[in-house]
Amino acid sequence: MFDLCAIAPAAWLGVDIFPTMPFLATAEPEGAPIVLAGVLLTLVFIYTASKLGAEAAKRVDFPPVLGELVAGVVVGVSLLHLVIFPESGLQASDSVVMSVLQWINHLTPEAMDSIFASQSEVISVLAELGVIILLFEIGLESDLRQLKEVGYQAAIVAVVGVVVPFLAGTVGLMALFHVPAIAAIFAGAALTATSIGITSKVLAELGHLKSKEGQIIVGAAVIDDVLGIIVLAVVASLAKTGEVDITNVIYLILSASAFLLGAVFLAEIFNKTFVKTVEALRTRGSIVIPAFVFAFLMAFLGNALHLEAILGAFAAGLVLDESDPRNELDNLIKPIADFMVPVFFVTVGARADLSVLNPLVPENLAGLGIAIFLIAVAIVGKVVTGWAVFNQPGINRLAIGIGMIPRGEVGLVFAGIGTASGVLDKPLEAAIIIMVILTTFLAPPCLRLAFGDEEAATETAIESANASQLKPIPVTTEG
Amino acid sequence: MFDLCAIAPAAWLGVDIFPTMPFLATAEPEGAPIVLAGVLLTLVFIYTASKLGAEAAKRVDFPPVLGELVAGVVVGVSLLHLVIFPESGLQASDSVVMSVLQWINHLTPEAMDSIFASQSEVISVLAELGVIILLFEIGLESDLRQLKEVGYQAAIVAVVGVVVPFLAGTVGLMALFHVPAIAAIFAGAALTATSIGITSKVLAELGHLKSKEGQIIVGAAVIDDVLGIIVLAVVASLAKTGEVDITNVIYLILSASAFLLGAVFLAEIFNKTFVKTVEALRTRGSIVIPAFVFAFLMAFLGNALHLEAILGAFAAGLVLDESDPRNELDNLIKPIADFMVPVFFVTVGARADLSVLNPLVPENLAGLGIAIFLIAVAIVGKVVTGWAVFNQPGINRLAIGIGMIPRGEVGLVFAGIGTASGVLDKPLEAAIIIMVILTTFLAPPCLRLAFGDEEAATETAIESANASQLKPIPVTTEG
Repeated sequence: MFDLCAIAPAAWLGVDIFPTMPFLATAEPEGAPIVLAGVLLTLVFIYTASKLGAEAAKRVDFPPVLGELVAGVVVGVSLLHLVIFPESGLQASDSVVMSVLQWINHLTPEAMDSIFASQSEVISVLAELGVIILLFEIGLESDLRQLKEVGYQAAIVAVVGVVVPFLAGTVGLMALFHVPAIAAIFAGAALTATSIGITSKVLAELGHLKSKEGQIIVGAAVIDDVLGIIVLAVVASLAKTGEVDITNVIYLILSASAFLLGAVFLAEIFNKTFVKTVEALRTRGSIVIPAFVFAFLMAFLGNALHLEAILGAFAAGLVLDESDPRNELDNLIKPIADFMVPVFFVTVGARADLSVLNPLVPENLAGLGIAIFLIAVAIVGKVVTGWAVFNQPGINRLAIGIGMIPRGEVGLVFAGIGTASGVLDKPLEAAIIIMVILTTFLAPPCLRLAFGDEEAATETAIESANASQLKPIPVTTEG
Repeated sequence: MFDLCAIAPAAWLGVDIFPTMPFLATAEPEGAPIVLAGVLLTLVFIYTASKLGAEAAKRVDFPPVLGELVAGVVVGVSLLHLVIFPESGLQASDSVVMSVLQWINHLTPEAMDSIFASQSEVISVLAELGVIILLFEIGLESDLRQLKEVGYQAAIVAVVGVVVPFLAGTVGLMALFHVPAIAAIFAGAALTATSIGITSKVLAELGHLKSKEGQIIVGAAVIDDVLGIIVLAVVASLAKTGEVDITNVIYLILSASAFLLGAVFLAEIFNKTFVKTVEALRTRGSIVIPAFVFAFLMAFLGNALHLEAILGAFAAGLVLDESDPRNELDNLIKPIADFMVPVFFVTVGARADLSVLNPLVPENLAGLGIAIFLIAVAIVGKVVTGWAVFNQPGINRLAIGIGMIPRGEVGLVFAGIGTASGVLDKPLEAAIIIMVILTTFLAPPCLRLAFGDEEAATETAIESANASQLKPIPVTTEG
């Protein structure tokens, strides 16, 4: 983490290392360069936290994205106040970044508030652009043709894995905890996601990526991505209106599905246009710029249709087929995603106020109950999917169910958008974050156990004969 | 350009292709998703314009960056109003982006104004991050060791090329056109830059990159970058305070120089830390994130010292020496720069109101006079530098002088920062933009003439003997 102590003591001692230039304090009425300074310092904190968190997670063999999330919690409203937002109820004076700016520029309280608001708005939009680029990248990595091989088995696992946690979560929150309908629906929806990145990485390490169980899990996770993003688009729209209207729900489900299907239907036109455009261009950015014009235009259309911008970005990635410029795009988008996506993950953690789940405070017990309930539904609701598989005697149903558990980045997208829309109160938001963290932490060791038990049960001879097949397949997919 | 006609006619006919959902109009009090929609649509316009402009310029053998600038003028306040900013005096209702958002979301006038302001703030900061990344990249490409070979000759050409246009421009504007001191100093400073990218590309095409003239021009352009950025930091600080105070000027010159020299002095520590950090990291973004933490921290420090953020970013790039991670960084930063830098170039053009130079309007004559004066000083002030070279009998002095003429992206950085700081009035800003465009357009053909004349004068035998040496060297540097 950036060593604040290196500069802060001077401030505490009342020493000003900058020359007192009173003429500078009165100038700059709009504070534009100070907003930029705030954004730069916030980005330095965000990037440093994201790398420290990702590396720490990697060292103990957990997905890096979880480390970024936890690092976000550490630098955010829950602890260090390095990255905070006005919506959390905190003031400009609570922000470390604003205190540094105040100390350098001798700002008035009004200027502090206005700069804090502007700077937070910019970081929020950067985070939203980050999640748009993330979903574009996930779309690019999802291969719909892969699904044809695993077919119905994967589809049924995916549908059960969406319906069961969604219904159990929503109904349970409303019946047991008297959560308002919209918030309960949103939290239920957050339970539906499956992180293909985390699961496929663990499967690869275990040498099970190409096994029947592995194929079903990965296929179901891809379908889950698509279903989840439709659910998210519908639920986020409901959250905006604040009421559940059945015609509205039907309109949203139809338009989200039509949007995705329409994109897939027009895929050939998009692909030809993309390849032709890229081939015609001769200046720098000849691949990146057409790709982002397409992705941002689709994101804008998703937003304009009262769905979600990320639905459009995901669709844009999904329909860009294998082609020479597409394959090069996969490489070029990586540094851009590395540059933008951490802003999203860290701010999701930073916005989550985990202090509302402190068990030592009696008022928090209801929130804790919700968190425990969500975690239980998140695990049980996915484990049961293994028993939805049919016509596959001897298949490891437990392993399939456990493979569907980790929520990872997709669950975070739900939490982030839920918080931004203001539909989730603090305990519910914190409960979802904890649910995402725990399911993602738990899945890898449990999956190893589930597959390990099976292997112990089978004959050692077969196992060693298949040893070469079971060797870990190197996979570069990351959280 | 994005075909607006594809969606707009429905609006003109009063047809609403989106279902009338009145409940959506009242929700979203903060308008956060609508700000995002505005940013996305603006980025689509910016990227499309940048590519169309760059490609058109490339086709007629002009630097792509000039095409991006002209495309910015076309989509901006001067013509299409696709990308405009409140500071230009235009209203939200003048913006095509806001009209599209209004048509989709049925916004109130107050919501329009607030969303227009927020969206413009975000695009402005994205443009500023773009120029920070551009200067970081320019710093990475500048090689201080290269200077040792051309030595004093290049240094004296650079210094003359900074001092003469600066003094002639500033004094001329104040004496002849009664321009206020700060604005005159800023415009004078904008005359000092030399674009190394454009010059070295033309030199390479002519096969003169390794000739004595070429070496002196390139060396002087590198020194010019450093001098120019110090001049800019000082002048921009003066612009913020609004007055010329001699102690302040001395403080600024000393601190800008000390900042750069300090960075160079500490280069070894920075480099070792960077290489060690990159080697220790094992997650995605292991090179990009440390590089940007360094660049943004230096940019923040530049800003905090009341200099310029770009000074810090330039210094950060300058001090990162050749090393394995550094060389990989050069490749990784390209897509990120391709993604961010066009936002800067296009918005510089978009902010410039060239209608104030329309010669048919009598009130514009003063502005036109200023533009013609600036262009004359820009050309003459650099051409004389050729005669500053000493002890080099027979050297092509005219070619050296002409090689220093193009302002390119560095001149645009001056114009962009001058406009953002509010010190330049519209005619002066437009005059600087025109000066940058013309000098950059004129230099390549003039340079060909200057070298061509020389070659015609030398014996044909020598020429053909050297033919292989004079063949164009392929260089990937771009404007």
